[in-house]
Amino acid sequence: MIVVMKVGTPEPEITRVSEELGSWGLTPEKIVGQTKVIIGLVGETASLNREQIQEVSPWIESVLRVEKPFKRASLEYRHGQASEVVIPTPNGDVAIGRDNPIAIVAGPCSVENEEMIVETAMRVKAAGAKFLRGGAYKPRTSPYAFQGHGESALGLLAAARDASGLGIITEVMDTADVEVISEYADVLQIGARNMQNFSLLKKVGNQPKPVLLKRGMSATIDEWLMAAEYILAAGNPNVILCERGIRTFDRAYARNVLDLSVLPVLKTLTHLPIMIDPSHGTGKSEYVPAMAKGAIAAGTDSLMIEVHPNPARALSDGPQSLTPDAFDALVKELAVFGKAVGRWEEAVPVLA
Amino acid sequence: MIVVMKVGTPEPEITRVSEELGSWGLTPEKIVGQTKVIIGLVGETASLNREQIQEVSPWIESVLRVEKPFKRASLEYRHGQASEVVIPTPNGDVAIGRDNPIAIVAGPCSVENEEMIVETAMRVKAAGAKFLRGGAYKPRTSPYAFQGHGESALGLLAAARDASGLGIITEVMDTADVEVISEYADVLQIGARNMQNFSLLKKVGNQPKPVLLKRGMSATIDEWLMAAEYILAAGNPNVILCERGIRTFDRAYARNVLDLSVLPVLKTLTHLPIMIDPSHGTGKSEYVPAMAKGAIAAGTDSLMIEVHPNPARALSDGPQSLTPDAFDALVKELAVFGKAVGRWEEAVPVLA
Amino acid sequence: MIVVMKVGTPEPEITRVSEELGSWGLTPEKIVGQTKVIIGLVGETASLNREQIQEVSPWIESVLRVEKPFKRASLEYRHGQASEVVIPTPNGDVAIGRDNPIAIVAGPCSVENEEMIVETAMRVKAAGAKFLRGGAYKPRTSPYAFQGHGESALGLLAAARDASGLGIITEVMDTADVEVISEYADVLQIGARNMQNFSLLKKVGNQPKPVLLKRGMSATIDEWLMAAEYILAAGNPNVILCERGIRTFDRAYARNVLDLSVLPVLKTLTHLPIMIDPSHGTGKSEYVPAMAKGAIAAGTDSLMIEVHPNPARALSDGPQSLTPDAFDALVKELAVFGKAVGRWEEAVPVLA
Amino acid sequence: MIVVMKVGTPEPEITRVSEELGSWGLTPEKIVGQTKVIIGLVGETASLNREQIQEVSPWIESVLRVEKPFKRASLEYRHGQASEVVIPTPNGDVAIGRDNPIAIVAGPCSVENEEMIVETAMRVKAAGAKFLRGGAYKPRTSPYAFQGHGESALGLLAAARDASGLGIITEVMDTADVEVISEYADVLQIGARNMQNFSLLKKVGNQPKPVLLKRGMSATIDEWLMAAEYILAAGNPNVILCERGIRTFDRAYARNVLDLSVLPVLKTLTHLPIMIDPSHGTGKSEYVPAMAKGAIAAGTDSLMIEVHPNPARALSDGPQSLTPDAFDALVKELAVFGKAVGRWEEAVPVLA
Repeated sequence: MIVVMKVGTPEPEITRVSEELGSWGLTPEKIVGQTKVIIGLVGETASLNREQIQEVSPWIESVLRVEKPFKRASLEYRHGQASEVVIPTPNGDVAIGRDNPIAIVAGPCSVENEEMIVETAMRVKAAGAKFLRGGAYKPRTSPYAFQGHGESALGLLAAARDASGLGIITEVMDTADVEVISEYADVLQIGARNMQNFSLLKKVGNQPKPVLLKRGMSATIDEWLMAAEYILAAGNPNVILCERGIRTFDRAYARNVLDLSVLPVLKTLTHLPIMIDPSHGTGKSEYVPAMAKGAIAAGTDSLMIEVHPNPARALSDGPQSLTPDAFDALVKELAVFGKAVGRWEEAVPVLA
Repeated sequence: MIVVMKVGTPEPEITRVSEELGSWGLTPEKIVGQTKVIIGLVGETASLNREQIQEVSPWIESVLRVEKPFKRASLEYRHGQASEVVIPTPNGDVAIGRDNPIAIVAGPCSVENEEMIVETAMRVKAAGAKFLRGGAYKPRTSPYAFQGHGESALGLLAAARDASGLGIITEVMDTADVEVISEYADVLQIGARNMQNFSLLKKVGNQPKPVLLKRGMSATIDEWLMAAEYILAAGNPNVILCERGIRTFDRAYARNVLDLSVLPVLKTLTHLPIMIDPSHGTGKSEYVPAMAKGAIAAGTDSLMIEVHPNPARALSDGPQSLTPDAFDALVKELAVFGKAVGRWEEAVPVLA
Repeated sequence: MIVVMKVGTPEPEITRVSEELGSWGLTPEKIVGQTKVIIGLVGETASLNREQIQEVSPWIESVLRVEKPFKRASLEYRHGQASEVVIPTPNGDVAIGRDNPIAIVAGPCSVENEEMIVETAMRVKAAGAKFLRGGAYKPRTSPYAFQGHGESALGLLAAARDASGLGIITEVMDTADVEVISEYADVLQIGARNMQNFSLLKKVGNQPKPVLLKRGMSATIDEWLMAAEYILAAGNPNVILCERGIRTFDRAYARNVLDLSVLPVLKTLTHLPIMIDPSHGTGKSEYVPAMAKGAIAAGTDSLMIEVHPNPARALSDGPQSLTPDAFDALVKELAVFGKAVGRWEEAVPVLA
Repeated sequence: MIVVMKVGTPEPEITRVSEELGSWGLTPEKIVGQTKVIIGLVGETASLNREQIQEVSPWIESVLRVEKPFKRASLEYRHGQASEVVIPTPNGDVAIGRDNPIAIVAGPCSVENEEMIVETAMRVKAAGAKFLRGGAYKPRTSPYAFQGHGESALGLLAAARDASGLGIITEVMDTADVEVISEYADVLQIGARNMQNFSLLKKVGNQPKPVLLKRGMSATIDEWLMAAEYILAAGNPNVILCERGIRTFDRAYARNVLDLSVLPVLKTLTHLPIMIDPSHGTGKSEYVPAMAKGAIAAGTDSLMIEVHPNPARALSDGPQSLTPDAFDALVKELAVFGKAVGRWEEAVPVLA
């Protein structure tokens, strides 16, 4: 932190401010410039906020933060080396990270019944997905909308996992459900609306399964990384960051603005792997292919794409879901771009 | 819902769409205009979304919602009559609503220790507040920042309640804490970051204490009212809506933009009482008086103002807190505006 | 500007950076802290941007701006003293400023014909307005919408001025029209969409009539004050800042969010007088009274309110216009708040 | 337009509303539903706004727009066929459109001197660019910053054009400069801050050179297309839409959020070709390559990239400029993605 004093601050006031800040456990370093005096604060400043320091004296002109607020999430924490999250699945370990093939997560918004979830799993696996997504507990804007089948849907996901060998990613909305969900899921998802549900972040940070942390719809990058920091600080090092569209002034066509610029930005800030969700990011299936391709070219580590056997009859988020056929065709198109970036896993020929 | 078909849609396709929507339990009413055909959908459309209908046919040009998505929160639900939330406190019942005196809630961001919370309670009561706010569980951006004293702070709030007679408002962040907090608090607060924590909304909807529902930092008015709808639908009719500043493109001076226009807007939409929080809404104590006055003149039903005996040493949100002296002076100023709108409770002379 | 060097920057690189910045005409002052080296830059830094400095060396961690970018618009420029803009009108000089009675500007969006503009002028004058607004040149989203009557409407405004004695405020959209408009108008308005039309700002800065500068719909406060700085720097000291609603994520009910928090914020930053426009700020006449009252209580220096004799038939912006009767009633209500803040001009009794 | 009447509207009021709207030149078509009456308005509704109709009766519940506000810019206007803009340059015609090779525009923010602009032109041409960008008139936030060399810079651009054979793209900020700039430039650029400078749009619509229309920083897609409509309606059919980053709540790292989702969205709405500017879109040169690749994969028709021989000494926007070497390397990388989408012009082997 740097404290900038106003021009003409009396010497005794500068001394008083330095002593006050010193009494907070910080080491003030006074610097006398030509016109202004600046006080550098050395010490543990992560838990301080600038405005608090500002209050110390009316002679303080401004307080500037020099350090980033996140630590364990920072690239420096791993000395500039990216991390990878390795997730065991029935089909084998899948690693998501900067030096790994792009991993694809696919599946419906909600788990509706066993037939649909198993069918979807088999179809998306055949197309190349490594993980099945599907909601058991659904955050819905309206209390009158379908809220997910809850715990019984977890059993259906398990059946789909057994049938397909895919890893399972499903959302947790309540601290009370963390335990049961982590028995079934391979990756726990924190949804955008819960990105700053700090109780939930601590809880998923305190269990062993990897966490997919969706960006809040108006969360800054710093806030997002601080949410990851909650999980990391609670002891769980396996966090994947998922961009799913941000809220802006225009929602007439795309439901959100998918912020692909987080790809180059996050790579300079954090070691954590990144996923892009063009389905929620745009809200319309017809926009998904262009944005999925764009995400690969811009450097994503993984993709999450909604697929539903019959989007028009989906219990939730039908309009943004691809059919299995459309998903299959898309993955073939994506392969071109995945190869262009040198991050596409060649399908292993299967012996008859 | 109104379904607008594209110019030139073949007759059989219009019939097919009508039948499909009819099979969803809706009654389609076909209307043949000069160039376009429109299908009105009569029936229970609250749980449908427009995009889902759009998927039914590529010949659908657009789907327009005619009804508002909220019911119990709507002004129509009470036939245009505002509701009031009556809260029992040791000093007597306090009613918050459109026809009641403006109620003031004051107190620190966090409960730090017994002395500070009791002192603050006595001071804000003397100045005219009806409720004491104070956080036991604190949502903090950083996991390394002070997280609140938790359950032990609830006991301190109880002490302040006993000493002052003020009602207590404190935040609940976790479904697991609802029960214990509702034993101590007179009003349960849902913070901005949890406005769409639907598990928590259901839980507080299912207990008897009134709920103060803060607006999410980028929540639309419809989303905010739908969050209230969750609580109402779960059985708790006592919800107060609290505007606390929204997130915009500019945060250089005020931390948020306090959206006072919700006052006239909400009054045309909902019967629920409204509170304005200029402290979080601006993030700086020097902006609080102007916005508190503006809120009264624009029609607020209540105000929430942060007060701390020593803002510079507050464990959280010091910069936006007033000192007890400043709060006292402010309430005197507010009285002028409260009287101008005919909603100020005259202090009852106390006999010696 | 403060340049923060990364931990471990080699000494020769620090020297090189200092010399490079020195060659730009700045005086670098090196400060050696415990872990980091900081270089303070003294000199004319207003025209520099932080990123430009950042480019000088990959060892630069960050560059922090200490000074505000505006000068003539700053409160310091007048040593903390507010300015007032004095505008001659047929009815006498009207001063707008922090220590003056609140001035009201009223009138239709567009000048439609002589009868309507003269009638409106007489009605708003009778109600207490000091200025008549009315567009001759209209910025319209659609090229097919009514674009204003142009120069001929200026003549109609002159007629209304003669009839009522009110000062005239009208918008200028094109550098080519500045001269003719400044012959007719008492105040030239720069609309929100032209707030950063720098050619136009320079031109109105170079003529003698006061300028009403509307805030761009997503302009930060710094950008707004820099736009004012263009006018001031060109030689015109008479600038009034007008807040007219900002663009946010929610436009379902109010067309914009009227940002009343600019009132306390601007008063700490600038000496320029402030106007609030609740008509454009909300986009609906039913929200105007609450926001006009709120603006007065929060400290505005003036108000701009749309009034049209027949809003349903207005050629533009009908829905946000009050009828003359409604305006008359509103001004009576506003008087209560204007008196509460001690800034209401008592009507002078007129002798028969 | 569809007018939805409230439940219980008296029959005579419905008749009155129909007659009133009929007197506006519209044909009302009454539709009696089960609970509500709806009035469809047939006729020229493009210049009407919904709120104006709403004012006609308090019994009107809502007014819904069925048609898009733009015509000539719409895909329907060309019966679903994309347009291409063909620009003559000394090196031959260059066509920008959906079925053409991706065209690259490169060059510095400002034209600083002859040597730098000619050198840059030669370097970017060698790397594969078809157009040289360079500002003669510069919109700058501060009046104290470098404002461009104006008309003299146009001569330098002509020299660079002669030397390199590249087409020239330069910004016009003032109606007074349109004529002289259109003598020198091959494409006239309208900057983001002038996207709704309607006087300027009309003027560039009334001259023969193609226009590059940058999106305003908080312009909705509808507003952007309506700005294009101004140019088209004035008679100039050659408009290219350029996305250059939008303003959101987070500016800590990237200066804007580059909205690549406009690519699939615009392709469903308009026939006009699209350009993406990742330099302004992110504000930092290190983010440019990822976003340029993403833009190609997501379907852009052209790219605009800032290149400066010495970014650290640039008179404007240095931080977002690539060096010629970095640009050269980037174009080689882009070729991989350009070929993947089948839209890359193979370099023609030059005979010695």
